[in-house]
Amino acid sequence: MLRSPIKHCRNCGTVVAYRLPDDGDTRERAVCTSCATIHYENPLNVVGTVPYLGDRVLLCKRNIEPRWGKWTLPAGFMELGETTAEGAARETVEEAGAQFQLEGLLSVLSVPRVSQVHLFYLARLTSDRFEPGIETIEARLFTEAEVPWDEIAFRTVRETLMRYFDDRRRGSIGVHTLDID
Amino acid sequence: MLRSPIKHCRNCGTVVAYRLPDDGDTRERAVCTSCATIHYENPLNVVGTVPYLGDRVLLCKRNIEPRWGKWTLPAGFMELGETTAEGAARETVEEAGAQFQLEGLLSVLSVPRVSQVHLFYLARLTSDRFEPGIETIEARLFTEAEVPWDEIAFRTVRETLMRYFDDRRRGSIGVHTLDID
Repeated sequence: MLRSPIKHCRNCGTVVAYRLPDDGDTRERAVCTSCATIHYENPLNVVGTVPYLGDRVLLCKRNIEPRWGKWTLPAGFMELGETTAEGAARETVEEAGAQFQLEGLLSVLSVPRVSQVHLFYLARLTSDRFEPGIETIEARLFTEAEVPWDEIAFRTVRETLMRYFDDRRRGSIGVHTLDID
Repeated sequence: MLRSPIKHCRNCGTVVAYRLPDDGDTRERAVCTSCATIHYENPLNVVGTVPYLGDRVLLCKRNIEPRWGKWTLPAGFMELGETTAEGAARETVEEAGAQFQLEGLLSVLSVPRVSQVHLFYLARLTSDRFEPGIETIEARLFTEAEVPWDEIAFRTVRETLMRYFDDRRRGSIGVHTLDID
């Protein structure tokens, strides 16, 4: 979901120019050459969960690009009008059809290269039966040793899983903040 | 920064229609009636700091709307290409001209009514001299008793400050997640 440059004004359809607005802003924005509407572009949040049952975590095998066939945690773009926790829970239902109790925030990862912030919550599974959605080939539980570490779709997922298992070993779950190159 | 509905396609300028895309999406998006570009709209992150020096925190008196003249923590919209921590530090420089060492994440607050997520970091001030930017009338240090609680610009700021002072009293700073109606 890397976006191409804005070419036309969302308000009137006229061509825009990237320039410094006249309001003291220090960044170039797409400014309409007719109605002067300023178009702001900002980072996106990806929200998801680490669903766990005993010593196992739930991973989903991706049925969509990018990284088709790789394993991931249930997660997706946060939508308008929802909280981070609501978005994380929604994605867990949509992608895994899991039943769970949402718990605390586990990780906040900035990925400036793609202008994203990923937030993962813990989710205590209340069933080991899943109904994967169309974006998921398979949803399956893995112990730490079973996790297909070389087949994880995204670094934010890998880092979050590693910190979750580290915390479990230590017996104390924290909130992890991390930047991904 | 509540945005008006998209009227024209960012790619070709043609009128859009809000409808379900054909890709299995479950939400209505602004879809171009000519080139079929789908326009996604997502929540925005506001990033800022709680700058502290001893038992005092730095607040900024707003020189911009909304809430002109009210007190706030340095914070603003996260920009493309930066991490949450970088954005929080940038805003602290821009709005307060403060010198500080950025520390850990303190609060993550969802504000679904306006589709925003606010993230505040701790910032240990290394000087009590400030050079407020054009968006700030005055930057000043306050003890908890001195904070103008009834003149705080935003609930996310008020809640973050309350949790900071609570944590200080307990001698343990945590990461607070909170939803604001």
